[in-house]
Amino acid sequence: MSESKIDTRLWSSKARNLSPYVPGEQPQHDNLCKLNTNENPFPPSPKVGQAIAKVLEKQAEDLRLYPAPESDDLRAALAQLYSLEANQVFVGNGSDEVLALVFASFFLKERPVLAPDISYSFYPVYAQTFGVDLIQIPLEEDFSVDPDAYRQPCSGIIIANPNAPTGLLLSLDDIRKLAGEHSNAVVVIDEAYIDFAQSTENNQDTTVSAISLINEFDNILVTQTFSKSRSLAGLRVGMAFGNVSLIEALTRMKNSFNSFPLDKLAQAGATASVIDVEYFEQMRQQVMDLRESLTADLTALGYDVLPSHANFVFARPKDGNASTVASALREQGIIVRHFDKPRINEYLRITIGTPAQHERLIEALKTLHDSNDIAAG
Amino acid sequence: MSESKIDTRLWSSKARNLSPYVPGEQPQHDNLCKLNTNENPFPPSPKVGQAIAKVLEKQAEDLRLYPAPESDDLRAALAQLYSLEANQVFVGNGSDEVLALVFASFFLKERPVLAPDISYSFYPVYAQTFGVDLIQIPLEEDFSVDPDAYRQPCSGIIIANPNAPTGLLLSLDDIRKLAGEHSNAVVVIDEAYIDFAQSTENNQDTTVSAISLINEFDNILVTQTFSKSRSLAGLRVGMAFGNVSLIEALTRMKNSFNSFPLDKLAQAGATASVIDVEYFEQMRQQVMDLRESLTADLTALGYDVLPSHANFVFARPKDGNASTVASALREQGIIVRHFDKPRINEYLRITIGTPAQHERLIEALKTLHDSNDIAAG
Repeated sequence: MSESKIDTRLWSSKARNLSPYVPGEQPQHDNLCKLNTNENPFPPSPKVGQAIAKVLEKQAEDLRLYPAPESDDLRAALAQLYSLEANQVFVGNGSDEVLALVFASFFLKERPVLAPDISYSFYPVYAQTFGVDLIQIPLEEDFSVDPDAYRQPCSGIIIANPNAPTGLLLSLDDIRKLAGEHSNAVVVIDEAYIDFAQSTENNQDTTVSAISLINEFDNILVTQTFSKSRSLAGLRVGMAFGNVSLIEALTRMKNSFNSFPLDKLAQAGATASVIDVEYFEQMRQQVMDLRESLTADLTALGYDVLPSHANFVFARPKDGNASTVASALREQGIIVRHFDKPRINEYLRITIGTPAQHERLIEALKTLHDSNDIAAG
Repeated sequence: MSESKIDTRLWSSKARNLSPYVPGEQPQHDNLCKLNTNENPFPPSPKVGQAIAKVLEKQAEDLRLYPAPESDDLRAALAQLYSLEANQVFVGNGSDEVLALVFASFFLKERPVLAPDISYSFYPVYAQTFGVDLIQIPLEEDFSVDPDAYRQPCSGIIIANPNAPTGLLLSLDDIRKLAGEHSNAVVVIDEAYIDFAQSTENNQDTTVSAISLINEFDNILVTQTFSKSRSLAGLRVGMAFGNVSLIEALTRMKNSFNSFPLDKLAQAGATASVIDVEYFEQMRQQVMDLRESLTADLTALGYDVLPSHANFVFARPKDGNASTVASALREQGIIVRHFDKPRINEYLRITIGTPAQHERLIEALKTLHDSNDIAAG
């Protein structure tokens, strides 16, 4: 639609001042190697489809009726998975909706919310939507988060962990520090990618999720999603974990906005996904293994690859000309994400794909850099 | 959860001041005669299940990927159905979400929004959520809406048409009058039940939907839902129709809140429902026929039944003791809706059910009123 045709006369000032989020593109061509939106290369658990088919079989009884407004079965399954009470669990229409409700429920006009300057680009959009000041705290030189840089009055802190697009992980000790130093603020840890993270301490596979801290800190709220590690971006389910009082605020906000955000099929499918622990563990391990091999292949091509704890890598080609590489790949039907922003414009964010997709990517990069070398020579 | 355990210390003032919507109860017992939440007694089109099953069959390709953010296929199908352009159509997660975005997009803090005093009880909740003043305009003595009563400065008017819980229909002439007299306000016609309405002029089946006015008035926005006439309350799909500039505001607001409100299965199922015009026409006719027979049966029992254009009737027992009737029915597993509010507390809102459910209801009422007569005698 051409912007010139739009008449904003009847819009609210809120509507006029928005800067909507722009999601990564979803081109619909065949034979595309789509490594740009951090979807999982593998299908969801087969139990998901079975559970949804079961609802469909008796749809006469089911789809005509409203769904459970508080998604009780799904919340119970998540509570059991993480050894929590159901009233410490909230679910919504993707973690994007959950995050929007978080901004409305906890962050104040009087005191700003703090977030890293390089992070999920929806955070500043939410801040504008809900009229909250967002102060961007610069990441360190190595793209890490320094908790000491957050020492200022605020009503909240929101940090993606692992961060996007860097893939770097903040330790639980640092999160403890943030929560302890900001007892009057809600510290939101957006763990969209946490299931791909591994603790590096002592080479042991210890927990890295801040869910382990919510019984200790009443001001830590953890958000997660079914879109990445559970291969269910198409089903739109996200969740939050926290103290019962934080969850109650989210529930009240939801019920003042939209009582039934999760349809019956999404509730059934998501619940089945949670219960199939074995499949989940296999798939996330597979993605982590592929991340290691892709990191090795890119490193061999001279790329500087940040140590990723997510289902993507953030990599800088030798000459830093990421934009050119992205365009050249696109011509061959390989889509990766390039952010034309200060500090990160020399990097590409590449989603972990299948072995075949990685092969295609690496071959294309080899050819590209070889010919560049020749051209440059 | 006991309220006493809740600590609001970390809540935003917005969260503290909410009065969340309370949906009609969804009890999960067997053999319940559930006539309380205006769901359709008949199943959705079989095409809906088929379309969703088709997505599931190739779920490896599909559920792991994000859905189309603007639900293009669904909007195209709706545009075709109503002879509109796709950019005159907006869809969301149930008409509740659409209405929330409407409040955020068009209604101002500076000028109030006007709504009937007896109407959908979510409107005052949205007003509070978005910090907008809502002025309730009393319905006439006969529960009708008088457009002349709305002559005051406002940023918007929202009217459910047919209204709930009365079922009464406002004419297109009255809607034209409202829109013409309030050219600086958005006039929202919430047509959740419109597919069950029939024009009474000249006994002809002429259009009653304000969709027919949106090319004439740039300030009319029409909302509808898949939850009633399309038997898809469990799928959470609602829509809005209006001038491209109004639709653009809703789209921008959505993309500042949650880019992907409709999952892949809901988009596929809803699209199939729109395309199956024949089934839709049969089902809505069937519900309207059942409404006429239920109205006759209740009238025969001495009930005063308002002329309904919805999939429910609003009926007053002879003695006006609606609360007692509702309780007595509940003891027999028949759930109807009673609103304990001034002016309407002598009425029951009874959803149109299956012939068997109507029989059960009427038998129960006969017995109840007979025994009451005996007791009173």
